[in-house]
Amino acid sequence: MTERHDILPLVPADIDTYRQPVVYMREDCHVCRSEGFGTQSRIEIEVEGKRIIATLNVITGGDWLPQETAALSNTAWEALALQPGAVGRFSHPEPPVSASAIRTKVYGGRLDDAACRAIISDTIQRRLSDLDLAAFVTSCAGDRLDEAETIALTLAMRDAGVRLDWGRGPVLDKHCVGGLPGNRTTPIVVAIVAAAGHLIPKTSSRAITSPAGTADTMEVMAPVALDQAAMRGVVEAEGGCIVWGGGLDLSPADDMLIRIERPLDFDSEGQMVASILSKKAAAGSSHVLIDMPIGPTAKVRSYAAAKALSDRLQAVARALGQTISVNRSDGSAPVGRGIGPALEAYDVLAVLRRSPQAPADLRERALDVAGALLELVGTNGRQLAGELLDGGKAEAKFMAICAAQGGFTEPGEAPQMQPVNADRAGRITAIDNRRIAKIAKLAGAPGRKTSGVLLRTRVGDTVEIGQPLFEVHAETQGELAWALDFTASRDSPFRVEDAP
Amino acid sequence: MTERHDILPLVPADIDTYRQPVVYMREDCHVCRSEGFGTQSRIEIEVEGKRIIATLNVITGGDWLPQETAALSNTAWEALALQPGAVGRFSHPEPPVSASAIRTKVYGGRLDDAACRAIISDTIQRRLSDLDLAAFVTSCAGDRLDEAETIALTLAMRDAGVRLDWGRGPVLDKHCVGGLPGNRTTPIVVAIVAAAGHLIPKTSSRAITSPAGTADTMEVMAPVALDQAAMRGVVEAEGGCIVWGGGLDLSPADDMLIRIERPLDFDSEGQMVASILSKKAAAGSSHVLIDMPIGPTAKVRSYAAAKALSDRLQAVARALGQTISVNRSDGSAPVGRGIGPALEAYDVLAVLRRSPQAPADLRERALDVAGALLELVGTNGRQLAGELLDGGKAEAKFMAICAAQGGFTEPGEAPQMQPVNADRAGRITAIDNRRIAKIAKLAGAPGRKTSGVLLRTRVGDTVEIGQPLFEVHAETQGELAWALDFTASRDSPFRVEDAP
Repeated sequence: MTERHDILPLVPADIDTYRQPVVYMREDCHVCRSEGFGTQSRIEIEVEGKRIIATLNVITGGDWLPQETAALSNTAWEALALQPGAVGRFSHPEPPVSASAIRTKVYGGRLDDAACRAIISDTIQRRLSDLDLAAFVTSCAGDRLDEAETIALTLAMRDAGVRLDWGRGPVLDKHCVGGLPGNRTTPIVVAIVAAAGHLIPKTSSRAITSPAGTADTMEVMAPVALDQAAMRGVVEAEGGCIVWGGGLDLSPADDMLIRIERPLDFDSEGQMVASILSKKAAAGSSHVLIDMPIGPTAKVRSYAAAKALSDRLQAVARALGQTISVNRSDGSAPVGRGIGPALEAYDVLAVLRRSPQAPADLRERALDVAGALLELVGTNGRQLAGELLDGGKAEAKFMAICAAQGGFTEPGEAPQMQPVNADRAGRITAIDNRRIAKIAKLAGAPGRKTSGVLLRTRVGDTVEIGQPLFEVHAETQGELAWALDFTASRDSPFRVEDAP
Repeated sequence: MTERHDILPLVPADIDTYRQPVVYMREDCHVCRSEGFGTQSRIEIEVEGKRIIATLNVITGGDWLPQETAALSNTAWEALALQPGAVGRFSHPEPPVSASAIRTKVYGGRLDDAACRAIISDTIQRRLSDLDLAAFVTSCAGDRLDEAETIALTLAMRDAGVRLDWGRGPVLDKHCVGGLPGNRTTPIVVAIVAAAGHLIPKTSSRAITSPAGTADTMEVMAPVALDQAAMRGVVEAEGGCIVWGGGLDLSPADDMLIRIERPLDFDSEGQMVASILSKKAAAGSSHVLIDMPIGPTAKVRSYAAAKALSDRLQAVARALGQTISVNRSDGSAPVGRGIGPALEAYDVLAVLRRSPQAPADLRERALDVAGALLELVGTNGRQLAGELLDGGKAEAKFMAICAAQGGFTEPGEAPQMQPVNADRAGRITAIDNRRIAKIAKLAGAPGRKTSGVLLRTRVGDTVEIGQPLFEVHAETQGELAWALDFTASRDSPFRVEDAP
């Protein structure tokens, strides 16, 4: 009897709503009317046994959506794996079971194992709305997740997606707690550790809010969008890889929570730990080095915050059976010279190739991280790392990994470039990481691979009036102009003070 | 120089995103590319000095949006008051100043006056995203707003929109803390109080999640969408009115917060008090009667909750210079017979007309509320209320108010009706308010004015097998079938137990 009221053919809306499933229906459609759906209703859509919950946006005019048809946002269309001609059945969803777990946490209660598993399961199945997820993230802000809750959340996130098993160990890994432009140690560290004969199947992310993620930089030099089988082939052949983790379904809830966390920008120690370690555990890593830059414009801003975060990471890693080590580093200024995918790739290659122009700070940081990681499974890690880099074995390993991933390419160069010069003489006492990152993004990074910022000076240098502080590289004149406009309209990201 | 990069013509998208401003741009448009906007970016749009912040949804295919054009959701189009041919300037917005106030509250800090004013101002100007608002609502859940914060929030909300001044006093008002289907006392109370010679300029809301709001019910009998001048004319002529408050800009932040609060469904005592009293203060009311039904399926579920809410209401009212009284009533079952705009209007008219079939419970409740309200400004309120109702003065006043609002109309009757019968004999011991409301909504209420549920029995009645418990009224066969399907597929909203 209900068949009359709740069925409509489906078409793609071709609208990217950033992972939020949205269904578009005309206000005069019979399903809206008979079901009493209104804008912002949550609607369950079922197609051949697959179900999602989408938010309704009502079409009030125009003619892009034919009568008696529903259109789905890209995320909804993909989640249901639809083909043209699909027909959906629409109903009012039951409230997600995890809503009461979130409510409990919001009111000051605690999350147990079952609550975490329910929340993560409903997150992945998109049964929770963006508002529900925002409430969950808010209820965990600051230090509101205790150690047991953090462990429960991490385990729930780890178990919710694919778990890689490498069949042997130890499996090494690294993670940098973000916030430092240009700090692209990963390709160097993987090359050194793999050259040492260890397993290091590294998955990296693309930039979300930064001018480049490791996957963006690596992609300038070799393919990174490998599937699980291809990744496994690279690791079996070379011991290591540097691939994009986004397509591998490792801790998939993490990406969905990050989508909500980033714009809210609350620091939640528990959620940060669960995010990092669930991904590492899902990737099958047994020994993980956490690089933690500390500085006023970095993600971790004080030693007290670093200590609390390190303690929580250690406690959760123990519960997961992982060995981790935290490497605290100076996060007061950008690392290397380039900021942007290709410009950072140049720095990486210069270090691996032992070029005289290689940025010394990037080399030292990469050796520190590789050394500390090797120390987790042996002795004299720093010395071994240095030997493998200086002797060319790391370079050879990197080239072999690139070849195995699909072939190495030299990074390109942007057609547009303009230097930004010092407007006073003196000594550079600080560089604002966040502002430099913003200029690189306005110039086109990471979407435009060769765009970004090239630093010509560093903290501690003395400069004359008119001397170039940094260069803006861009692929179009428009983007170059836009980045320069922004630079000119604000205080300089370089603080220049009278030299003593 | 930037003119090249940040300007696009604007067209309406004809998409109702439920008050969330959304801008639709093609992924290949020059503004997206040069500004580095991606899906979910917050974008400031300026047209001739007016600015809003909208969320970007990227169009990835199809041809409904022409190249180099941006489309705006209905809310965004209306907020900018656009005409065809408008051109927008797009930029990255500064983070809203109130984001740090919300952050403070999320981390456990307190909201002072300035913080509340910043949050409410940014809410009204749509500078806060839905995620920001969800975080704010979450941070205030339960009892997390203390008395001083509640007062600060109420004042900020009151001052953010229009404030009506009636030039004389006292100005009487009532508010029902929702959750009870059919409890439509307002038209009767206004008629009685105005017949007593008092000023009662009542504004009411339409249904958000219920089968009928007072404005929906009143609209069956007279126009309710009056502007401020027309409302003032009615009040000056008749002493009272019953109009829709949605178009009057009274405490406009309230509606925007409710949009987020409803789907999250967290009870926040502070936000509920601020919502109620900011609207009453903006409407210029000096003496307010709060009707508070208490019951297991009502909004307020226990006497302890009622006590806490009453105390908070009294404290905030004192700070606003208002006199209030809280009338606690039985919220265990629906009131009257009809649930749905026209069916409730019948009950209202039956009481005003002293029909022998008038529902006694609705009459008693209306007299209780009117009496308690009259007591706030005099003595023997309950007796006076009874005399005005029984003597026909309330009916005459109601008809005069309807005439002044644009003319009285008798409510219509639904073309489709089917009774739902008892499947066992016994005594009715409970009726589930929420389930009855849902059946009425599935039948089409409040969108279809004559649709809804008519109760044929009440708690305490004894029934035989096959005796009608309630009727479903609908305007279309499809909606009737849908409501009956739902009814048949669940436990009955009526609990029938063996008569002792």
